[in-house]
Parts: sequence; structure tokens; C-alpha cells
Amino acid sequence: MPKTTKKENITIVLNRPKYPGNVGSVARCAKNMGIEKIMVVGNRNLDEEEMKMMATHVAADIVDNIRYFDYLDETLAGFHYIVGTTSRRGNARGPVVSPREMAERLPDISQENEVALLFGPEDTGLSNDELRFCHLVVAIPASSRFKSINLSHAMMILCYEIFVSRAEPMEKFTPRLATSAELEGMYDQAKELLTKIDFLNPQNPDYSVMHIRRLLSRTKLLSREVKILRGICRQIEWYAKNKNT
Amino acid sequence: MPKTTKKENITIVLNRPKYPGNVGSVARCAKNMGIEKIMVVGNRNLDEEEMKMMATHVAADIVDNIRYFDYLDETLAGFHYIVGTTSRRGNARGPVVSPREMAERLPDISQENEVALLFGPEDTGLSNDELRFCHLVVAIPASSRFKSINLSHAMMILCYEIFVSRAEPMEKFTPRLATSAELEGMYDQAKELLTKIDFLNPQNPDYSVMHIRRLLSRTKLLSREVKILRGICRQIEWYAKNKNT
Repeated sequence: MPKTTKKENITIVLNRPKYPGNVGSVARCAKNMGIEKIMVVGNRNLDEEEMKMMATHVAADIVDNIRYFDYLDETLAGFHYIVGTTSRRGNARGPVVSPREMAERLPDISQENEVALLFGPEDTGLSNDELRFCHLVVAIPASSRFKSINLSHAMMILCYEIFVSRAEPMEKFTPRLATSAELEGMYDQAKELLTKIDFLNPQNPDYSVMHIRRLLSRTKLLSREVKILRGICRQIEWYAKNKNT
Repeated sequence: MPKTTKKENITIVLNRPKYPGNVGSVARCAKNMGIEKIMVVGNRNLDEEEMKMMATHVAADIVDNIRYFDYLDETLAGFHYIVGTTSRRGNARGPVVSPREMAERLPDISQENEVALLFGPEDTGLSNDELRFCHLVVAIPASSRFKSINLSHAMMILCYEIFVSRAEPMEKFTPRLATSAELEGMYDQAKELLTKIDFLNPQNPDYSVMHIRRLLSRTKLLSREVKILRGICRQIEWYAKNKNT
């Protein structure tokens, strides 16, 4: 199954969200991560203006298309695979996975099945009863003393992991590096110049040059950068020759 | 260098942020991901109440400790390594790395050096002039058509990647699986029961049992679950024997 398949059957399900701003933020995050569908359960009174303010124009259409439900069971009825989220851990909650593990498992499933990412209310999260609907429960790693992640930020991390796991590796910007011949030509020229201006110890000219070589090797010099450096060397020679004439 | 070292020298630097709510959200995200220091450049008029509302009590102390500056160069003067963020790409901006690559490079640096994570204003991001301060530029992968990530969500993704790259792998919840002997005992019992209740074809009793075996193998049955299933089988036998007496 190709990892790059764009169309996946993933829906964000927000159970009893309290704040319209959060729902708007969720819409914006979803859109940025290529997810278009949101369902809201148990709150039909979310202020649309506040939602759209946080969604920005980018995700206004997602807010317009939110589907509202009264009960969690009817909302989830049509889904084949339900991923729950929790910040609490405990034996009663069973095994939890990291967002990255979740993202690695989903693609095989979401090509042929409807997947719900289920989030609980801002203050309490999903109850044990609600987590029972879930095939998989995800916990976001966080600093243990202060674990209190905002709904839209938690959702962003999950959607980001899903997006990244499907995306082609980021296109690398790899301009042509300088060849060894280009580099050696530059070092020869530099050595000659530094000798001429009495910077190098004539007994051991290679000592300082070695440090310069190391420094420049670390940066992975580009072909065009070698040309610039050699131009500077030439110009110094020219200036040194001509300044007193 | 141990990957688990908790104390790292990472500071969030927000350049000309416009909205106090965003700064508060950034504080909350930072705290959750174990980062405590925020500097704000070019805006000393952020409403503290609005910041603290979004920071919640969890990160109120971070808001109290924000350091304010007027100019970017003085803010960055003491840092050894500066990571910039951009949503735009272009040859002029040079190479960019993904958040994950950034997180992998940082630990070696941040043990001994002060690192700044630099974010631009909500509407424009960092300018080319401002990106010149940066040793490394990060771009967050996102759906290309709608790339418009909120400041605090962008920051959350970066801090999450840093946190995850340093964290110990999530503790696995691995209760004891059933042994082969436990499983075979259960399958024998089930086969006997299913034969007794005339569910299995006596010519080929193994056919249906094979399907049940496959199904249960997939779930990686726990020892205690085998006990429960065997208890159900026993109870069915008991009921079948006693219901008509």
C-alpha cells in the first residue's frame, strides 16, 4: 500500500468540547495536516463566530461542515477503528501507545476503513466508559509534573504525526558540493597568500592551514562558495600589490 | 552524552508577537514539554491577564518570568546556537530541516550551549533579515495548499519533537501473554464444547476451530483472558447440562 496515498478516511471526533475557540483551532490544525472532517458530540451551542475566528479563513469551510451529534455511541456507530486519547495512565486503561506508534499503525487500516480520532472534553478528557469504544489509546509524552495539554495542541501532535508518517521525506536542498580538486586549488591559493602576507610560520606553514581546512570541511563547502573564497584571496593579493603604488 | 539529561539550555524567543493569547499558549506548551524560558522581543504591551488565561495555572510562572527586549540582536546576543522557523521555502532562505531532524541535532549542542528557538510574528513569520541570525532553519511539514499554522501550534510541534527525542521510550504495558499450554488447553476445551452443542461438523471439527484460533491469535491473548474464556466454556457446559433438569 503506497505511503503517499493522500485520501484517508480520518475524522476528528470531539466529545463534549466546551470552548468554541478550541474547536476552531482544531479545524485549523486539521486543515493544515490534510484532515477535513470534524464531528462534535454533545454540544450544539458552540458560537460560530468564535469558532471561525480561531479557524481563520483557511479552515472556515471545515467549521461550516462540522456534523453535530447528541450521543457518542451514535456518532461512532459507522466507524471501523477508533483511536482514543488520554493524558492519564493506569492499569484500568490498558495499554497506551505513543502518537508515533499510532501514526505507524494507521495507514494500513485507514485506506479501507473509517477511522475516528476521539478527543474528550477540555477539563476531564475521555472517561473510562468512553475509552471502551476505542481500539487504540494514545498518550502524548509530556513533562510529567505539568501534564495539561490544550485540546487543539494535543490534536495537532496526533495529526502532525499522521501527516509526517505519510509524507514523502522533505525535499532535500542539496546544491553541488565542491569537488576535492576545487578544494585543493583553494587551499593551495590560500597557503600561498597567507605565506606572502607573513601569516604562516615558514617553518611549518601547514599548521595553521590545517585548522582552516578543518573549519571549512565541517561546513561542507559548496562549489560556488569556493569560487567566492578564491575571489577574496585574489582580491587581497591585488590590493596588497597595488595599494602602495 | 546521555540522551536523558533533563536540563537543557533551550529558550523560546518570540519576535514581535501580536496576540497575548498566543504567548500564553506558547507558555503552556513550553511547560508541558519541559521548557521554562521565554523571551519576547519588540512588544512590551502584551496583556498579562490574557496571557495567563491561555497559559492556565500550569504555566503562570513562565508568564511571570518572561524577559522582554526591544531589539532582536540584543536578545540573541548571548546565544550560541539559534534555530529559526519558517513556513516559506525558497532558495534565498537556504536549506531547511524538518522538526525531527532539528530535534536530533540539538542534544549535542544544547548541553554546553545556549540555544534559542526563534519564532516570527503571527502574520508574517521571520523575515530573511531575521533568519540570517539562525544557524539552522526549520520548516514544519504541512498540507501545502493550506499552510498556515498558528504560532503556538508550530512551537508545540518543535518542542514536542525535542521532548520526544530526549525521552526514554514510553514504558510498555506488557502483561503476561498466555503460554502455548494454556492456549491449547483452552482450544481443546472449546472444541469439546462446540462438538457437544453440535456447532462443529463432526467430519471436520477442526475447520471452524481453525478460524477461532486465528482470530484469537491475532489478539495476543493474556493469561487471565484465557481463564475468563475457559470459565465461560465451563459455564455453558454446566447450563446445558442443568437447564432441563
